[in-house]
This record gives sequence, structure tokens and C-alpha cells, in this order.
Amino acid sequence: MMESYRAHAEAALKAYSAGEGLAPILAESMRYGLLDGGKRIRPCLLLCTAEMLGADPETTLPFACALEMIHCYSLIHDDLPAMDNDDSRRGKPSTHKQFGEANGILAGDGLLTAAALLLSKQPGHDAAKTAILSAALDMVSGQSYDLNASDRSEAFLRELHRQKTGALFRAATEAAANLADRNDLMPAFAALGETIGMLFQITDDLLDAERDRAEDKLTFVTFYGEDGARAFAAEAERSALATLADFDGAAADELRQLIRALTCRTE
Amino acid sequence: MMESYRAHAEAALKAYSAGEGLAPILAESMRYGLLDGGKRIRPCLLLCTAEMLGADPETTLPFACALEMIHCYSLIHDDLPAMDNDDSRRGKPSTHKQFGEANGILAGDGLLTAAALLLSKQPGHDAAKTAILSAALDMVSGQSYDLNASDRSEAFLRELHRQKTGALFRAATEAAANLADRNDLMPAFAALGETIGMLFQITDDLLDAERDRAEDKLTFVTFYGEDGARAFAAEAERSALATLADFDGAAADELRQLIRALTCRTE
Repeated sequence: MMESYRAHAEAALKAYSAGEGLAPILAESMRYGLLDGGKRIRPCLLLCTAEMLGADPETTLPFACALEMIHCYSLIHDDLPAMDNDDSRRGKPSTHKQFGEANGILAGDGLLTAAALLLSKQPGHDAAKTAILSAALDMVSGQSYDLNASDRSEAFLRELHRQKTGALFRAATEAAANLADRNDLMPAFAALGETIGMLFQITDDLLDAERDRAEDKLTFVTFYGEDGARAFAAEAERSALATLADFDGAAADELRQLIRALTCRTE
Repeated sequence: MMESYRAHAEAALKAYSAGEGLAPILAESMRYGLLDGGKRIRPCLLLCTAEMLGADPETTLPFACALEMIHCYSLIHDDLPAMDNDDSRRGKPSTHKQFGEANGILAGDGLLTAAALLLSKQPGHDAAKTAILSAALDMVSGQSYDLNASDRSEAFLRELHRQKTGALFRAATEAAANLADRNDLMPAFAALGETIGMLFQITDDLLDAERDRAEDKLTFVTFYGEDGARAFAAEAERSALATLADFDGAAADELRQLIRALTCRTE
């Protein structure tokens, strides 16, 4: 079933990135950075949560795609020489390696703009749009904290990851509640998304540590140690599953499975 | 009166860029690239057109500011070393010179996101939001055409500038028509904005030529010669004023004055 969400998101992303009327290299570089290879966790989380809460899948798909476009633009800009300077991404050259640095910058700008434009074209659900764009701004702030990090406190580590990684996960579940016309659940589901985002980040840090890629970065593993980080992940999993305790049905089961899979993911 | 639009836009931009909850360097670099020094032509054009058509100024101000935030993000990214590599802007170091390249990229990302977020928070007027964000995407496409220019035809020159410069001017007047609940005027006012944008671009090219800054770039002056470019500007001015022939009142007079000032501007 998660595979079905992923396939839906993938097909819709393809359709939304036709790039009609755009300069050919811009359209091609945007598609290059967006399509093929992503796990699509954020749009799947949005689609699954929205279905669990009874939203219409036709309505939710563009919101899920906008969220993924924002995630992908951030990866393109993160990989730039002035940022993390990564030459490859998802098993292929990163966008700026493939198209040059200037086109990489524009591809990211284009995807972020296309995401906002896609949202603006959806009728209603202003709170879902604001949740997603507000998270997108928090994400930039998280990257800024990461880039200019001088503080190595626990509070700083938590705030950095709450903004850098947690924000888009929060947006997925918070927007889902609005899309299902369950605004009463938005605060609880915003918190659920942040918790899932933290879970994702901790397992990311654990995988990096296994591969000796953490260096001297401030991560959950370098701060709390591997055992400490695992305990945090277990607590995040427990807390996320507790929020879902009262929900039944296939989508709720799928969401629980997604959360458990994030806890013990190996890639 | 144009000075009053400018002052209103400036004050609102200041208020919208407080950057609450954002990483301090991100907030500071966004404000640096946004505030002090801009002529604010695009938001003034939006505010003036909207007032002429009877829109509520309270409603229009956030849209005008979002448009200017998009313009300023594009200047920050344009100035980056991989793009135009400009060390100064508006009489001070460009944003990446002041804060470093990575922070410059993030400042631009932040301003574009903040613009989309500001739009998402405004009730209704979806067509104005879409007009602005659609223009923002065209603008990126125009930059891509400029960057990867291989074609030196008249059609290419027109399309490049229609997207790169014309799009945000088009958005200003097109959004203004929607904000005044005059959707019937949106096509005519979209065309008006594009014409004003072309007028702006031609006088820009003429000023660059006077300062010997055009080099071998494809501009209206290098393509048509100075006299040819001036004839185009005069025709654009005539066409824009003709669209406004049936409008009366102080705002209409102000708009005509703005168009005439663009034709003979010296900075």
C-alpha cells in the first residue's frame, strides 16, 4: 500500500514537472533533481495520514507533490559547492554537477516556485498551504543554523533538527489534518509529524555513524552516543504510535508500519 | 503620491521581515537583501494600479510586498559568483559578499519562501496569488534563457525579456485587477504590465549602453541600435498610455506619470 502511495506521488510529480513554457534547460534540470530515486517519504506520509483521516485522495495529491518539490529543491541547493559540496545524490551526479552551478541554483529556485504555484492553484485548504510553506521557511532556517553552528548545546541540537528535518515531516501530517477537514487535529498531528521527523533524523545519524560519515558534526549520535540515540528513537516511535492508538483501518495500519520501518531502516 | 506608495511598501516590508523564529543570520541576511535602497517600482505599480481600479489598500499591500520580496530574492541569487558575480548592489556589498555565499543562497531561498508564505496567509484572491507565483516561475525561466543563451534572434530577445523582466511587471498589474475584483480586466492589464516591463528593460539597456556596460550582451540596444531601442520605448509608452485612456482620478494620473518617468529615467 505504501508502494501505491509512492507510485501515485511519482506519477503526479512527473505530470506536474512537464515544464511547459519554461526554458528547456531549466525544465530538464528541475525534472532531473525531482524525479527518479527519491524514497518519497514525506508525500507518502501526507497521503497516508490524509487517507486515514478521511480526506479525498484527489485533493491531497497536489499538496503531497508540492511538499516533495520543496524537499527536492532543498537537496539541490544543499549539494551546491558553497553549501555541502556533494557531487552525487541518489546514485547519480548532483544537479549542479550535471548542469553546472548556475543552472543548479535556478533548478532549485524553479522547484520551490513551482511548489508554491501548485499550492496556489488548489482551491481552499489555506491552512494546509500555510503549514507547508511555513515549514519550508523553517527548513531554510534549520539549514542556516546548521551552516553557522557555533552552539553545541542540547537545546541547539533539538531546535536545529526540529527546523531542518522536522519541519517538512510536521507539514505532512499537519496539512493532512486540514485536508481531511479535521482542523481540530492539526496541533496533535503537527506534533506527530515532528516526532516522526526526529525519528527519521536519529536513524539517519545512526546510519551515518555506522558508515563513519558523521565526522565531528553535531548529531544525535555524537551528542547522546549510539545507545542514547537508540533510546531516543524508541521513545519517539512509542510516542508517535500512541498518537495513532485510536485510529483503525488499512491506512492507520500502514502509517504505523511506516513509523516502525523508519525506526529500523537501513538506508 | 508615488512616494507615499513607496513609503507604505517600505514600512510593510520592514514589518514582514522581522524574521521571528528564524536563525538570526538568516533573518539578518534576508532583511539586508530586502530593505533600504530599492526603488520599489513593482510594488508601487501594483499599489497604484489597484487603487486606480478601486481595490482596498489594506488588501493589496501584502501582495505588493510579496512581489518585491520575489524581486529581491532574484537579485540576491543573480549576484552569486556562479551567476553574474556582482560584488555590490544598491551601493552596498551584495548579500553574498556581506554574509558569505552559502548564506546568500539561503537568504534568497528564505525571501522566496517568505513571499509565498505571505501570499498563502491572505484570504481569497487566488488569481492574484497565482499571477504572482506564475510570474516568479517565468522569471527563473528568463534567467535560464539569459544564462544559456545561444540564440541571438529577435524572437529570442523578446521572449527572454518578456520572462526575465516583463513577468514581474505583468504580475503587478494583473494581480491588481484581481485584487480590485476586476477579473474582466486581467488579460488587458497583464498585457499592460508586460509592456511597462519592456519599457523598463529598454531604458535599462539604453542606460547600460551609455555607461558602456552592455559589452556583447544581447540587449534591445545591441539588437536594434540606440535609435531603434528609443523608438520601441516610445511605442511601448504610447501603447501603455492608450490602455489607461479611459481611467480618471489621481491614481490614474500617477500611473501615467510613472510610465512617462520610466521612459526617460536616468538611473
